[in-house]
Amino acid sequence: MDREARLREVVKAALEHPVYREKLKGLSPEEVSLETLQTLPLTTREEWVAYLRENPRPPEGASLMHLTPSPLMGWMPEYLSQEDLRYQAEALAAHYRRLGLVGKKVLVAFSYHVFAGGWLFHQALWRAGNLVFPHGPGEAGRIAEIGQTYGFDVLVTNPSFALKVGQAGGRFPLLLAGGEPFTSVPGFREKVEALLGGVALDAYGTSELGIVAGETMAKDGLWEIPEMAILEVLDPETLKPVADGEKGELVVTALSRTLMPMLRFRTGDLAIAERREGLTVLPRGVFGRTDAMVKVKGVKLYPTELSPILAGFGLDPRGFQVVLERKLEGTDKLVLRLKGEKVPPGLMEAIQKATGLRVDEVELVGEIAGPLVEDRRF
Amino acid sequence: MDREARLREVVKAALEHPVYREKLKGLSPEEVSLETLQTLPLTTREEWVAYLRENPRPPEGASLMHLTPSPLMGWMPEYLSQEDLRYQAEALAAHYRRLGLVGKKVLVAFSYHVFAGGWLFHQALWRAGNLVFPHGPGEAGRIAEIGQTYGFDVLVTNPSFALKVGQAGGRFPLLLAGGEPFTSVPGFREKVEALLGGVALDAYGTSELGIVAGETMAKDGLWEIPEMAILEVLDPETLKPVADGEKGELVVTALSRTLMPMLRFRTGDLAIAERREGLTVLPRGVFGRTDAMVKVKGVKLYPTELSPILAGFGLDPRGFQVVLERKLEGTDKLVLRLKGEKVPPGLMEAIQKATGLRVDEVELVGEIAGPLVEDRRF
Repeated sequence: MDREARLREVVKAALEHPVYREKLKGLSPEEVSLETLQTLPLTTREEWVAYLRENPRPPEGASLMHLTPSPLMGWMPEYLSQEDLRYQAEALAAHYRRLGLVGKKVLVAFSYHVFAGGWLFHQALWRAGNLVFPHGPGEAGRIAEIGQTYGFDVLVTNPSFALKVGQAGGRFPLLLAGGEPFTSVPGFREKVEALLGGVALDAYGTSELGIVAGETMAKDGLWEIPEMAILEVLDPETLKPVADGEKGELVVTALSRTLMPMLRFRTGDLAIAERREGLTVLPRGVFGRTDAMVKVKGVKLYPTELSPILAGFGLDPRGFQVVLERKLEGTDKLVLRLKGEKVPPGLMEAIQKATGLRVDEVELVGEIAGPLVEDRRF
Repeated sequence: MDREARLREVVKAALEHPVYREKLKGLSPEEVSLETLQTLPLTTREEWVAYLRENPRPPEGASLMHLTPSPLMGWMPEYLSQEDLRYQAEALAAHYRRLGLVGKKVLVAFSYHVFAGGWLFHQALWRAGNLVFPHGPGEAGRIAEIGQTYGFDVLVTNPSFALKVGQAGGRFPLLLAGGEPFTSVPGFREKVEALLGGVALDAYGTSELGIVAGETMAKDGLWEIPEMAILEVLDPETLKPVADGEKGELVVTALSRTLMPMLRFRTGDLAIAERREGLTVLPRGVFGRTDAMVKVKGVKLYPTELSPILAGFGLDPRGFQVVLERKLEGTDKLVLRLKGEKVPPGLMEAIQKATGLRVDEVELVGEIAGPLVEDRRF
């Protein structure tokens, strides 16, 4: 497939969309290429919310609608045209075909109601030539039983529910996971795989974008799905691409959407960029948010990045706070307030390795209250 | 479309299916026509259950699976091929296009999880060129709000939930109902229409068959959907077609299924047959079951037929029993045991009109226990 030609189609659609019309004024789709994409303006969820709040009703040509909970507007609608849906199913089917998912029996335990979750996986896996059973969420025991009775090969759900299915006796040769931090949590994949008795693969997607990155059987990071999207990882301050191996904000241009074009959409999600075989790969998956970033000792600290690390050490992923103080000599002091009774051995080293910052002091507490970051420096 | 050609394709598929192979031995699909269909053997749910119990796993070519609760085997699976699904969506889309349902905004409140319900409506309405929002069941208040915010034209759900949506303030120009007795309950449609502020249409379908009959805007009964199925109404004793206006068992040959062919499938549902414009019409909808039929004074009585009549008089549709006794002079005595404190005026006349039988005695009781029919005659 010609990604560049498809990108131009998406840009053409964006030029006619109220969210982009002004921003892209004067741009000719012919000028746009995979290389020059970086010169186009970025888009935020807030821009979309502002537009949809004024224009909630389905646009002309809408054929499928979903809602995503949005703290900003209650529910944010997403609309796809028939053509978008066909494109998306085929594009993602190509990814599943490359994974060898053809002629398999797939049980989808994501919801098909209101949310896009189940649909995103269902339509592509169906199109790739698999049997799909739209089970929906919950009922781990029933899923375990159905898996065996009907000989299912693949379970599609989030990793924490997959654990429940495994605990209920469910065994699946393959898990396609998504919807929550997974491979970014050390040891999580191994636990899920041991329980389900198969291979577990991670993927990344959102309702607005579709599924845009996924693992291969090599389990070597989330690969950009070339038919679905163009991924960039940018420094959230300078908005320039970060160097290979550097952290930054995942920015996605969806190739599957023309009715609600998503051009250089800032996800707010934290990832590390790598280029391999001409594609962007996220070797550590998606492991935090960029929107709470603070600078400590001149280094960018993304506090939410600590969540998967804590989870990997068996701690509550939300049970922490970052407290920043000024030392007497004027330098920054990094205090980690931690819900727990003791500091698991190796935790501090893991945090230092991930963030590049040494924690100066740990404060163990019974409960956490207040914001993620308490900045007492200024 | 050429129904006869499609029927032959279905018969051809049946000839190769274990459920039919023996029954249809020696038959040539070329001999089969709309007229000679009646000479083919009937099929029951029990035959399918017996087969599926031994062979639960998806057959070769299965692309979508659903489960229906089955008292006989817990869950009964249904399988469709990609081709079946495409045929079904297009066939039913033709019906919705005839209803003028093109370019509308449709909210589906049937479940898409495990059951076929939501899918049956969704795919056809989508294919006909409508915007479909797969909402799923429940949340009447939210549906009322969404209906208004996004300007939905059509609500798809069962009539009792539609009432709740109406009570929560929901207003929809059109309701496509199904899944439970509706137009067979006197006054039910009027109540739903008054609450929702629009037109309410009934439909009939099952997981094994798809949606096979539906009302038109003329509200003059459930019409056979010619692309989807061939309907017959048979005397459940003689298994011969009943005369126009006579009650009998609805028997359906699905034109949309080849992977699990449904040839002259005995639904066990009670309907009245009429022929209009070359199609079978069920003027009173589907209003009871044939499997509890008893003969009273030489007349076939279908006790479940009383349910919609009781509901129409505001009584509990399950709050009754039929007691049959022998009068001293040897003739049958029909006693109706009724949960209630008094007999609503007009009820006895309505029952006599529907069943052709006069109730000899009414026994009012506080609770109903035991079987539907208590036959003390023999």
